[in-house]
Amino acid sequence: MPFTNRSLAAREAILSAARARFTEQGYDRTTIRQVATDANIDPSMVMRYYGSKDGLFAAAVDVDLKLPELGAIPREEVGGVLANHFVTMWRNDRNGPLSILLRSAVTHEEAAERLRAVFADQVTVMVRRLLGDGAEAELRAGLLSTHLLGIALTRFILALPPVASLDDEDLVAITAEYVDRVLNGPLPVGTAASGGGREQRVRRS
Amino acid sequence: MPFTNRSLAAREAILSAARARFTEQGYDRTTIRQVATDANIDPSMVMRYYGSKDGLFAAAVDVDLKLPELGAIPREEVGGVLANHFVTMWRNDRNGPLSILLRSAVTHEEAAERLRAVFADQVTVMVRRLLGDGAEAELRAGLLSTHLLGIALTRFILALPPVASLDDEDLVAITAEYVDRVLNGPLPVGTAASGGGREQRVRRS
Repeated sequence: MPFTNRSLAAREAILSAARARFTEQGYDRTTIRQVATDANIDPSMVMRYYGSKDGLFAAAVDVDLKLPELGAIPREEVGGVLANHFVTMWRNDRNGPLSILLRSAVTHEEAAERLRAVFADQVTVMVRRLLGDGAEAELRAGLLSTHLLGIALTRFILALPPVASLDDEDLVAITAEYVDRVLNGPLPVGTAASGGGREQRVRRS
Repeated sequence: MPFTNRSLAAREAILSAARARFTEQGYDRTTIRQVATDANIDPSMVMRYYGSKDGLFAAAVDVDLKLPELGAIPREEVGGVLANHFVTMWRNDRNGPLSILLRSAVTHEEAAERLRAVFADQVTVMVRRLLGDGAEAELRAGLLSTHLLGIALTRFILALPPVASLDDEDLVAITAEYVDRVLNGPLPVGTAASGGGREQRVRRS
Protein backbone atom coordinates (compact mmCIF):
# COMPACT_ATOMS: atom_id res chain seq x y z
CA MET A 1 0.00 0.00 0.00
CA PRO A 2 1.41 3.45 -0.85
CA PHE A 3 2.73 5.58 2.04
CA THR A 4 0.59 8.68 1.65
CA ASN A 5 0.98 11.54 4.12
CA ARG A 6 -2.28 10.45 5.68
CA SER A 7 -1.25 6.85 6.16
CA LEU A 8 2.11 8.02 7.56
CA ALA A 9 0.37 10.17 10.16
CA ALA A 10 -1.94 7.28 11.03
CA ARG A 11 1.02 4.90 11.41
CA GLU A 12 2.82 7.34 13.66
CA ALA A 13 -0.25 7.79 15.84
CA ILE A 14 -0.60 3.99 16.10
CA LEU A 15 3.07 3.43 16.96
CA SER A 16 3.02 6.18 19.56
CA ALA A 17 -0.12 4.73 21.18
CA ALA A 18 1.35 1.22 21.02
CA ARG A 19 4.60 2.31 22.73
CA ALA A 20 2.64 3.96 25.55
CA ARG A 21 0.51 0.85 26.09
CA PHE A 22 3.44 -1.59 25.87
CA THR A 23 5.35 0.55 28.40
CA GLU A 24 2.47 0.83 30.85
CA GLN A 25 1.08 -2.66 30.77
CA GLY A 26 3.49 -4.90 28.88
CA TYR A 27 3.00 -7.03 25.83
CA ASP A 28 0.47 -9.50 27.21
CA ARG A 29 -2.08 -7.05 28.50
CA THR A 30 -1.94 -4.76 25.46
CA THR A 31 -4.63 -5.28 22.84
CA ILE A 32 -4.96 -4.05 19.26
CA ARG A 33 -8.33 -2.61 20.25
CA GLN A 34 -6.87 -0.47 23.06
CA VAL A 35 -4.13 0.87 20.78
CA ALA A 36 -6.66 1.66 18.05
CA THR A 37 -8.90 3.50 20.51
CA ASP A 38 -5.94 5.51 21.88
CA ALA A 39 -4.85 6.44 18.36
CA ASN A 40 -8.42 7.21 17.32
CA ILE A 41 -8.18 4.79 14.41
CA ASP A 42 -10.30 1.79 13.48
CA PRO A 43 -8.83 -1.54 14.73
CA SER A 44 -9.13 -2.96 11.20
CA MET A 45 -6.66 -0.31 10.00
CA VAL A 46 -4.16 -1.29 12.71
CA MET A 47 -4.43 -4.88 11.49
CA ARG A 48 -4.12 -3.73 7.89
CA TYR A 49 -0.91 -1.79 8.62
CA TYR A 50 0.76 -4.22 11.04
CA GLY A 51 -0.86 -7.61 10.51
CA SER A 52 -0.93 -8.73 14.14
CA LYS A 53 -0.06 -7.69 17.68
CA ASP A 54 3.36 -9.23 17.13
CA GLY A 55 3.82 -7.15 13.95
CA LEU A 56 2.76 -4.04 15.84
CA PHE A 57 5.23 -4.83 18.64
CA ALA A 58 8.05 -5.34 16.13
CA ALA A 59 7.34 -1.97 14.54
CA ALA A 60 7.10 -0.25 17.94
CA VAL A 61 10.51 -1.53 19.04
CA ASP A 62 12.38 -1.06 15.78
CA VAL A 63 15.48 0.27 17.55
CA ASP A 64 18.18 2.27 15.84
CA LEU A 65 21.00 2.95 18.32
CA LYS A 66 22.34 5.60 15.90
CA LEU A 67 25.88 4.65 16.87
CA PRO A 68 28.60 7.12 15.90
CA GLU A 69 31.18 6.24 13.24
CA LEU A 70 34.22 5.57 15.45
CA GLY A 71 36.84 5.37 12.70
CA ALA A 72 37.05 9.15 12.52
CA ILE A 73 37.52 9.60 16.29
CA PRO A 74 40.95 9.55 18.01
CA ARG A 75 41.20 6.28 19.93
CA GLU A 76 41.56 7.93 23.33
CA GLU A 77 38.28 9.80 22.82
CA VAL A 78 36.23 6.75 21.83
CA GLY A 79 35.21 5.90 25.43
CA GLY A 80 33.90 9.39 26.10
CA VAL A 81 32.05 9.65 22.79
CA LEU A 82 30.31 6.28 23.21
CA ALA A 83 29.52 6.83 26.90
CA ASN A 84 28.01 10.20 26.13
CA HIS A 85 26.01 8.77 23.25
CA PHE A 86 24.51 5.98 25.40
CA VAL A 87 23.68 8.09 28.43
CA THR A 88 21.97 10.69 26.24
CA MET A 89 20.14 7.99 24.30
CA TRP A 90 18.77 6.27 27.41
CA ARG A 91 17.76 9.56 28.98
CA ASN A 92 15.76 10.43 25.88
CA ASP A 93 14.34 6.94 25.47
CA ARG A 94 12.73 6.51 28.91
CA ASN A 95 9.49 5.27 27.43
CA GLY A 96 10.91 4.73 23.97
CA PRO A 97 11.54 1.64 21.85
CA LEU A 98 14.69 0.51 23.65
CA SER A 99 13.13 0.63 27.13
CA ILE A 100 10.09 -1.27 25.93
CA LEU A 101 12.29 -3.85 24.27
CA LEU A 102 14.42 -4.36 27.40
CA ARG A 103 11.40 -4.58 29.71
CA SER A 104 9.73 -7.09 27.40
CA ALA A 105 12.85 -9.13 26.70
CA VAL A 106 13.21 -10.44 30.25
CA THR A 107 9.95 -12.37 29.97
CA HIS A 108 9.37 -12.80 26.22
CA GLU A 109 11.68 -14.86 24.09
CA GLU A 110 10.63 -13.07 20.87
CA ALA A 111 11.56 -9.71 22.40
CA ALA A 112 14.85 -11.15 23.71
CA GLU A 113 15.64 -12.39 20.21
CA ARG A 114 14.94 -8.93 18.83
CA LEU A 115 17.17 -7.31 21.47
CA ARG A 116 19.99 -9.75 20.68
CA ALA A 117 19.61 -8.79 17.01
CA VAL A 118 19.83 -5.07 17.80
CA PHE A 119 23.10 -5.56 19.68
CA ALA A 120 24.54 -8.04 17.17
CA ASP A 121 23.66 -5.89 14.15
CA GLN A 122 24.70 -2.58 15.62
CA VAL A 123 27.10 -2.79 18.62
CA THR A 124 29.02 -5.81 17.34
CA VAL A 125 29.27 -4.35 13.84
CA MET A 126 30.60 -1.07 15.27
CA VAL A 127 33.22 -2.84 17.41
CA ARG A 128 34.27 -5.05 14.50
CA ARG A 129 34.80 -1.97 12.36
CA LEU A 130 37.08 -0.61 15.09
CA LEU A 131 38.94 -3.78 16.12
CA GLY A 132 38.63 -6.06 13.12
CA ASP A 133 36.82 -9.37 12.81
CA GLY A 134 37.40 -12.29 15.14
CA ALA A 135 36.23 -13.82 18.39
CA GLU A 136 38.01 -11.25 20.52
CA ALA A 137 36.19 -8.29 18.95
CA GLU A 138 32.93 -10.17 19.43
CA LEU A 139 33.65 -10.80 23.10
CA ARG A 140 34.60 -7.16 23.67
CA ALA A 141 31.34 -6.12 21.98
CA GLY A 142 29.42 -8.53 24.23
CA LEU A 143 31.05 -7.17 27.39
CA LEU A 144 30.41 -3.62 26.22
CA SER A 145 26.74 -4.50 25.70
CA THR A 146 26.65 -6.13 29.14
CA HIS A 147 27.83 -2.98 30.83
CA LEU A 148 25.61 -0.65 28.81
CA LEU A 149 22.56 -2.81 29.51
CA GLY A 150 23.56 -3.03 33.18
CA ILE A 151 23.69 0.77 33.42
CA ALA A 152 20.36 1.09 31.60
CA LEU A 153 18.79 -1.47 33.92
CA THR A 154 20.00 -0.07 37.23
CA ARG A 155 19.78 3.64 36.42
CA PHE A 156 16.69 3.95 34.29
CA ILE A 157 14.58 0.89 34.99
CA LEU A 158 15.31 -0.31 38.53
CA ALA A 159 16.44 3.11 39.83
CA LEU A 160 19.08 1.50 42.04
CA PRO A 161 20.73 4.06 44.32
CA PRO A 162 23.13 5.75 44.08
CA VAL A 163 23.62 4.97 40.35
CA ALA A 164 20.15 6.35 39.64
CA SER A 165 21.00 9.73 41.20
CA LEU A 166 24.49 10.27 39.74
CA ASP A 167 25.03 13.42 37.69
CA ASP A 168 24.95 12.69 33.98
CA GLU A 169 28.55 13.88 33.67
CA ASP A 170 29.75 11.53 36.41
CA LEU A 171 27.87 8.63 34.85
CA VAL A 172 29.48 9.46 31.48
CA ALA A 173 32.95 9.62 33.07
CA ILE A 174 32.50 6.26 34.81
CA THR A 175 31.05 4.65 31.69
CA ALA A 176 33.77 6.14 29.47
CA GLU A 177 36.46 4.54 31.59
CA TYR A 178 34.78 1.16 31.33
CA VAL A 179 34.20 1.47 27.57
CA ASP A 180 37.81 2.40 27.04
CA ARG A 181 39.05 -0.53 29.10
CA VAL A 182 36.69 -3.08 27.56
CA LEU A 183 37.67 -2.03 24.02
CA ASN A 184 41.40 -1.53 24.54
CA GLY A 185 42.45 -3.14 27.82
CA PRO A 186 43.64 -6.68 28.57
CA LEU A 187 41.01 -9.41 28.38
CA PRO A 188 41.50 -11.98 31.17
CA VAL A 189 40.18 -14.88 29.14
CA GLY A 190 41.71 -18.33 29.01
CA THR A 191 44.40 -17.31 31.48
CA ALA A 192 42.95 -19.74 34.04
CA ALA A 193 43.75 -22.66 31.74
CA SER A 194 47.36 -23.80 31.76
CA GLY A 195 48.96 -21.68 29.08
CA GLY A 196 46.05 -22.25 26.70
CA GLY A 197 45.89 -20.10 23.58
CA ARG A 198 43.69 -17.20 24.54
CA GLU A 199 42.17 -16.45 21.18
CA GLN A 200 41.27 -20.11 20.78
CA ARG A 201 39.34 -20.27 24.01
CA VAL A 202 37.09 -17.33 23.18
CA ARG A 203 34.17 -19.28 21.83
CA ARG A 204 32.03 -18.20 18.95
CA SER A 205 28.38 -18.55 19.81
CA MET B 1 0.33 -20.62 63.77
CA PRO B 2 2.97 -23.14 64.87
CA PHE B 3 5.46 -24.38 62.25
CA THR B 4 4.88 -28.12 62.40
CA ASN B 5 6.78 -30.42 60.07
CA ARG B 6 3.61 -30.82 58.08
CA SER B 7 3.02 -27.10 57.67
CA LEU B 8 6.70 -26.62 56.76
CA ALA B 9 6.43 -29.22 53.98
CA ALA B 10 3.23 -27.59 52.75
CA ARG B 11 4.85 -24.15 52.73
CA GLU B 12 7.81 -25.47 50.78
CA ALA B 13 5.56 -27.13 48.23
CA ILE B 14 3.62 -23.87 47.82
CA LEU B 15 6.77 -21.72 47.42
CA SER B 16 8.25 -24.13 44.91
CA ALA B 17 5.03 -24.15 42.87
CA ALA B 18 4.79 -20.36 43.14
CA ARG B 19 8.37 -19.86 41.90
CA ALA B 20 7.70 -22.09 38.88
CA ARG B 21 4.52 -20.19 37.99
CA PHE B 22 6.04 -16.74 38.53
CA THR B 23 8.99 -17.76 36.34
CA GLU B 24 6.87 -19.17 33.55
CA GLN B 25 4.11 -16.63 33.35
CA GLY B 26 5.05 -13.64 35.50
CA TYR B 27 3.29 -12.02 38.40
CA ASP B 28 0.15 -10.86 36.64
CA ARG B 29 -0.91 -14.11 35.08
CA THR B 30 -0.17 -16.24 38.16
CA THR B 31 -3.14 -17.03 40.39
CA ILE B 32 -3.37 -18.41 43.92
CA ARG B 33 -5.62 -21.15 42.54
CA GLN B 34 -3.01 -22.34 39.99
CA VAL B 35 -0.29 -22.44 42.64
CA ALA B 36 -2.54 -24.34 45.03
CA THR B 37 -3.40 -26.88 42.33
CA ASP B 38 0.28 -27.36 41.42
CA ALA B 39 1.20 -27.85 45.09
CA ASN B 40 -1.79 -30.13 45.66
CA ILE B 41 -3.01 -27.95 48.51
CA ASP B 42 -6.34 -26.22 49.06
CA PRO B 43 -6.32 -22.54 47.97
CA SER B 44 -7.65 -21.52 51.39
CA MET B 45 -4.45 -22.88 52.95
CA VAL B 46 -2.31 -20.80 50.58
CA MET B 47 -4.26 -17.74 51.67
CA ARG B 48 -3.94 -18.76 55.31
CA TYR B 49 -0.15 -19.07 55.05
CA TYR B 50 0.59 -16.07 52.82
CA GLY B 51 -2.42 -13.77 53.08
CA SER B 52 -2.49 -12.63 49.43
CA LYS B 53 -0.79 -13.06 46.06
CA ASP B 54 1.51 -10.21 47.03
CA GLY B 55 2.42 -12.00 50.27
CA LEU B 56 3.08 -15.18 48.34
CA PHE B 57 5.29 -13.30 45.88
CA ALA B 58 7.26 -11.69 48.72
CA ALA B 59 7.90 -15.10 50.29
CA ALA B 60 8.86 -16.62 46.92
CA VAL B 61 11.50 -13.94 46.25
CA ASP B 62 12.95 -13.68 49.74
CA VAL B 63 16.52 -13.47 48.41
CA ASP B 64 19.58 -14.17 50.53
CA LEU B 65 22.71 -13.51 48.44
CA LYS B 66 24.73 -15.42 51.08
CA LEU B 67 27.62 -13.01 50.54
CA PRO B 68 30.98 -14.12 51.91
CA GLU B 69 32.60 -12.30 54.85
CA LEU B 70 35.30 -10.35 53.02
CA GLY B 71 37.23 -9.11 56.06
CA ALA B 72 39.01 -12.46 56.37
CA ILE B 73 40.08 -12.55 52.71
CA PRO B 74 43.35 -10.99 51.43
CA ARG B 75 42.44 -7.88 49.48
CA GLU B 76 43.90 -9.13 46.20
CA GLU B 77 41.67 -12.22 46.34
CA VAL B 78 38.42 -10.36 46.97
CA GLY B 79 37.61 -9.93 43.26
CA GLY B 80 38.00 -13.62 42.52
CA VAL B 81 36.03 -14.75 45.58
CA LEU B 82 33.10 -12.42 44.84
CA ALA B 83 33.07 -13.15 41.11
CA ASN B 84 33.06 -16.87 41.77
CA HIS B 85 30.30 -16.51 44.34
CA PHE B 86 28.03 -14.57 41.95
CA VAL B 87 28.58 -16.72 38.89
CA THR B 88 27.88 -19.88 40.93
CA MET B 89 24.85 -18.28 42.55
CA TRP B 90 23.28 -17.23 39.25
CA ARG B 91 23.96 -20.58 37.64
CA ASN B 92 22.16 -22.32 40.51
CA ASP B 93 19.35 -19.77 40.63
CA ARG B 94 18.17 -19.97 37.00
CA ASN B 95 14.54 -20.28 38.04
CA GLY B 96 15.16 -19.28 41.62
CA PRO B 97 14.13 -16.29 43.72
CA LEU B 98 16.69 -13.86 42.28
CA SER B 99 15.79 -14.54 38.64
CA ILE B 100 12.09 -14.16 39.40
CA LEU B 101 12.75 -10.92 41.24
CA LEU B 102 14.84 -9.47 38.39
CA ARG B 103 12.32 -10.49 35.74
CA SER B 104 9.47 -9.00 37.75
CA ALA B 105 11.31 -5.84 38.77
CA VAL B 106 11.51 -4.39 35.25
CA THR B 107 7.73 -4.06 35.07
CA HIS B 108 6.54 -4.03 38.71
CA GLU B 109 7.48 -1.22 41.04
CA GLU B 110 6.92 -3.39 44.16
CA ALA B 111 9.36 -5.99 42.85
CA ALA B 112 11.86 -3.25 41.93
CA GLU B 113 11.61 -1.89 45.47
CA ARG B 114 12.28 -5.36 46.85
CA LEU B 115 15.30 -5.79 44.54
CA ARG B 116 16.69 -2.40 45.62
CA ALA B 117 16.30 -3.53 49.24
CA VAL B 118 18.18 -6.79 48.58
CA PHE B 119 21.13 -4.89 47.11
CA ALA B 120 21.05 -2.11 49.72
CA ASP B 121 20.80 -4.51 52.67
CA GLN B 122 23.34 -7.01 51.42
CA VAL B 123 25.76 -5.71 48.75
CA THR B 124 26.05 -2.19 50.17
CA VAL B 125 26.46 -3.50 53.72
CA MET B 126 29.21 -5.87 52.55
CA VAL B 127 31.08 -3.10 50.70
CA ARG B 128 30.73 -0.73 53.67
CA ARG B 129 32.26 -3.34 55.95
CA LEU B 130 35.20 -3.53 53.55
CA LEU B 131 35.66 0.15 52.68
CA GLY B 132 34.03 1.98 55.56
CA ASP B 133 30.97 4.23 55.55
CA GLY B 134 30.55 7.16 53.22
CA ALA B 135 29.25 8.14 49.82
CA GLU B 136 32.21 6.63 48.00
CA ALA B 137 31.63 3.12 49.40
CA GLU B 138 27.96 3.46 48.46
CA LEU B 139 28.80 4.46 44.90
CA ARG B 140 31.27 1.57 44.55
CA ALA B 141 28.58 -0.81 45.84
CA GLY B 142 26.12 0.62 43.31
CA LEU B 143 28.55 0.18 40.42
CA LEU B 144 29.34 -3.34 41.59
CA SER B 145 25.61 -4.13 41.63
CA THR B 146 25.27 -2.59 38.16
CA HIS B 147 27.88 -4.88 36.72
CA LEU B 148 26.63 -8.00 38.51
CA LEU B 149 23.06 -7.32 37.38
CA GLY B 150 24.32 -6.59 33.86
CA ILE B 151 26.08 -9.97 33.74
CA ALA B 152 23.00 -11.73 35.14
CA LEU B 153 20.81 -10.01 32.57
CA THR B 154 22.90 -10.68 29.49
CA ARG B 155 24.17 -14.15 30.37
CA PHE B 156 21.25 -15.80 32.11
CA ILE B 157 18.16 -13.90 31.06
CA LEU B 158 18.76 -12.41 27.59
CA ALA B 159 21.39 -15.00 26.55
CA LEU B 160 23.33 -12.36 24.64
CA PRO B 161 26.18 -13.92 22.65
CA PRO B 162 29.02 -14.44 23.24
CA VAL B 163 28.67 -13.61 26.97
CA ALA B 164 26.06 -16.37 27.29
CA SER B 165 28.45 -19.01 25.96
CA LEU B 166 31.63 -18.06 27.85
CA ASP B 167 33.19 -20.73 30.05
CA ASP B 168 32.33 -20.19 33.70
CA GLU B 169 36.03 -19.75 34.49
CA ASP B 170 36.45 -17.05 31.84
CA LEU B 171 33.35 -15.26 33.08
CA VAL B 172 34.72 -15.42 36.63
CA ALA B 173 38.10 -14.05 35.49
CA ILE B 174 36.49 -11.15 33.62
CA THR B 175 34.11 -10.38 36.48
CA ALA B 176 36.90 -10.64 39.07
CA GLU B 177 38.91 -8.00 37.26
CA TYR B 178 35.94 -5.65 37.21
CA VAL B 179 35.06 -6.30 40.88
CA ASP B 180 38.64 -5.61 41.88
CA ARG B 181 38.75 -2.39 39.91
CA VAL B 182 35.38 -1.11 41.08
CA LEU B 183 36.25 -1.75 44.73
CA ASN B 184 39.86 -0.59 44.70
CA GLY B 185 40.54 1.40 41.54
CA PRO B 186 40.19 5.12 40.85
CA LEU B 187 36.66 6.47 40.60
CA PRO B 188 36.35 9.07 37.82
CA VAL B 189 33.70 11.07 39.60
CA GLY B 190 33.57 14.82 39.83
CA THR B 191 36.76 15.14 37.80
CA ALA B 192 34.82 16.83 35.02
CA ALA B 193 34.01 19.75 37.32
CA SER B 194 36.77 22.31 37.73
CA GLY B 195 38.72 21.06 40.73
CA GLY B 196 35.54 20.25 42.65
CA GLY B 197 35.89 18.09 45.77
CA ARG B 198 35.26 14.58 44.57
CA GLU B 199 33.80 13.16 47.77
CA GLN B 200 31.41 16.09 47.91
CA ARG B 201 30.02 15.47 44.47
CA VAL B 202 29.18 11.82 45.07
CA ARG B 203 25.58 12.26 46.03
CA ARG B 204 23.79 10.27 48.64
CA SER B 205 20.45 9.02 47.41
